[in-house]
Amino acid sequence: MPPTISLLTDFGLTDTYVGQMKAAILRVAPGVSLVDLTHAVPPQDVTGGAFLLWSAVEAFPEGSLHLAVVDPGVGSTRRAVAVRSLRGDVLVGPDNGLLVPALEQLGGQDLAVELTAPEYWGPRQSRTFHGRDKFAPVVGHLAAGVALEKLGRALHHLERPFSFPTPHEEDGCPVGEVLHVDTYGNLITNLPGAMLPVRFRVHVGNTVIEGAPHAHYQVVASGGLLALVGSAGLLEVSVRDGSAAAVLGVGRGARVRLE
Amino acid sequence: MPPTISLLTDFGLTDTYVGQMKAAILRVAPGVSLVDLTHAVPPQDVTGGAFLLWSAVEAFPEGSLHLAVVDPGVGSTRRAVAVRSLRGDVLVGPDNGLLVPALEQLGGQDLAVELTAPEYWGPRQSRTFHGRDKFAPVVGHLAAGVALEKLGRALHHLERPFSFPTPHEEDGCPVGEVLHVDTYGNLITNLPGAMLPVRFRVHVGNTVIEGAPHAHYQVVASGGLLALVGSAGLLEVSVRDGSAAAVLGVGRGARVRLE
Amino acid sequence: MPPTISLLTDFGLTDTYVGQMKAAILRVAPGVSLVDLTHAVPPQDVTGGAFLLWSAVEAFPEGSLHLAVVDPGVGSTRRAVAVRSLRGDVLVGPDNGLLVPALEQLGGQDLAVELTAPEYWGPRQSRTFHGRDKFAPVVGHLAAGVALEKLGRALHHLERPFSFPTPHEEDGCPVGEVLHVDTYGNLITNLPGAMLPVRFRVHVGNTVIEGAPHAHYQVVASGGLLALVGSAGLLEVSVRDGSAAAVLGVGRGARVRLE
Repeated sequence: MPPTISLLTDFGLTDTYVGQMKAAILRVAPGVSLVDLTHAVPPQDVTGGAFLLWSAVEAFPEGSLHLAVVDPGVGSTRRAVAVRSLRGDVLVGPDNGLLVPALEQLGGQDLAVELTAPEYWGPRQSRTFHGRDKFAPVVGHLAAGVALEKLGRALHHLERPFSFPTPHEEDGCPVGEVLHVDTYGNLITNLPGAMLPVRFRVHVGNTVIEGAPHAHYQVVASGGLLALVGSAGLLEVSVRDGSAAAVLGVGRGARVRLE
Repeated sequence: MPPTISLLTDFGLTDTYVGQMKAAILRVAPGVSLVDLTHAVPPQDVTGGAFLLWSAVEAFPEGSLHLAVVDPGVGSTRRAVAVRSLRGDVLVGPDNGLLVPALEQLGGQDLAVELTAPEYWGPRQSRTFHGRDKFAPVVGHLAAGVALEKLGRALHHLERPFSFPTPHEEDGCPVGEVLHVDTYGNLITNLPGAMLPVRFRVHVGNTVIEGAPHAHYQVVASGGLLALVGSAGLLEVSVRDGSAAAVLGVGRGARVRLE
Repeated sequence: MPPTISLLTDFGLTDTYVGQMKAAILRVAPGVSLVDLTHAVPPQDVTGGAFLLWSAVEAFPEGSLHLAVVDPGVGSTRRAVAVRSLRGDVLVGPDNGLLVPALEQLGGQDLAVELTAPEYWGPRQSRTFHGRDKFAPVVGHLAAGVALEKLGRALHHLERPFSFPTPHEEDGCPVGEVLHVDTYGNLITNLPGAMLPVRFRVHVGNTVIEGAPHAHYQVVASGGLLALVGSAGLLEVSVRDGSAAAVLGVGRGARVRLE
């Protein structure tokens, strides 16, 4: 059974770009399982894409392939890479930071290569669509059993580092920020659930919320605010049957203080 | 050949939640066919989700699996269930009414179980994402051949009943309502096509439309109103090359009277 | 290994229409690979759909099946067809022009048939959803190995021709137009990349852009305008990290003059 392949891009779903990329994979590896993570990363938003990729990879079977393309530097000198994690998954995409948090989530780097072997690329090479012409064929060859080492020259490390902002302390209180606002308007912060005490207060915007790590939405009335550990293992601020982002008037980057 | 699996949620496509759920299925049942019904159910709209699920299940091969998650009560005491229909399909999701119309469409209940056997759940358990952590692994195990009976304790019936509003009569005329407005702006009513005479009139909003059950869109000029039996077998009101919802200024719940 | 199947419609993703169509394929051909090209063709926009289908088919393996439904004439006398290209792919859909540019992209017509053999249609026949009830089952049977010739009577040619507007010359200068605005706001023109000299100027709206066929986005500063050969092999006008459509205030049909 070939590995499952996940796909994440900023291509949107109104054009055929995602379909063309999948076609280029299936041309090399017919019948493989393709799973869309999302194609609605805001255009060119490498940071947003890195968060979304990070949030999803752990759920996949070990040894999966992950193709991620948010690539404002396509066609320039930025490297194209494939990198195997210690867990055994391989991430393929531009070396612009996009892959780094997911790689760390999967145990860190085992082996990275720059995609310099054109025999594993597609039959046509454009300057603006490496997703279809380089990354997808490479992913197809990996799915078909080609060894990572054959795809190009080994790299000691990815060129472009990347890390999410980390929490710090102010007056003995952890202070973090909102990393992502999800489709429900939940505010997903960079404060790990594991660091939360049994009772705590969250300050965000002009509001203070009583937190309970193991809460669920129905512990408050409809429209009520909650602070709980969400599905990514991070502190999330939510509104039952509503949008915390709208109610609190805050978004990505907003300061979140624990007490 | 393992069964086809359909998926319906209110997760949207901008986050990776749908992808994480699919990953959790494929972790247990590699290579199964996954078909998205829709992930654009309005957030927490169990009634809207129930209609959309109902509308789609009949088209699937007998014995398919249907995973549906619109789940405002996630983490609370609402039951998680899997229920086999007389046709042989199994529906998996929260016991909040969402599954009921589809179950009836497939012949009604054969066997229902509450998902109480944790050995068929995922390796990680969150309080807010049973789609990934409980429902999806269960669907994977069903696809891989685990018997429904093993997933938990048998239930006499689902806890939460659900039915769409049914038409009634006023002065000898059938009166129904709009159940759903589709992407084209077609008004899909609860009036079954089978009850329509050869000629009839439809009153909706302030407008009267001459109906013809076996019509198609090109029997009227562009912009013209039609009343016909749509693909769900229900009376639909449409505008050729336009949106009936916009032209008539009505939406879900609007009264529809036949004459 | 059965052929890969691509799908393109104007059904949107908020209803279950696409899912029902896929179900009807899988009912006949379980386990086949389905690839969405897009389902966001503007409602009833045959011309827009024809461009998007054209843009994508070449990336697929030879011998793929392509199901395309943008079908304002559904239920009327417009023909339903399946047509094999010289490359070996088969296109299935309404005979309203939608399939023609993709067919030419794949080498032109080998054999066309009208879908007149009801034994290859679905079990239920609606007047408004041939995508599910006729086209999808036919695609399933083709994937399962049924010969094209069995699906109905042979046609000498498709009834409805279609071609994109072609460039012409004015005062010795090629003049074309914008065929498509993509999700990034790139303006994709009908001017083939192969006809471009090494240096040229593009006039579009009130703006003149220095072109370079082999450029990529990072040759200009953020917000800068480019004219380059895009992934479809056509001249495209782009804004780095922005939308050329928004910056220039132009859209589909806008005049583009080369100098």
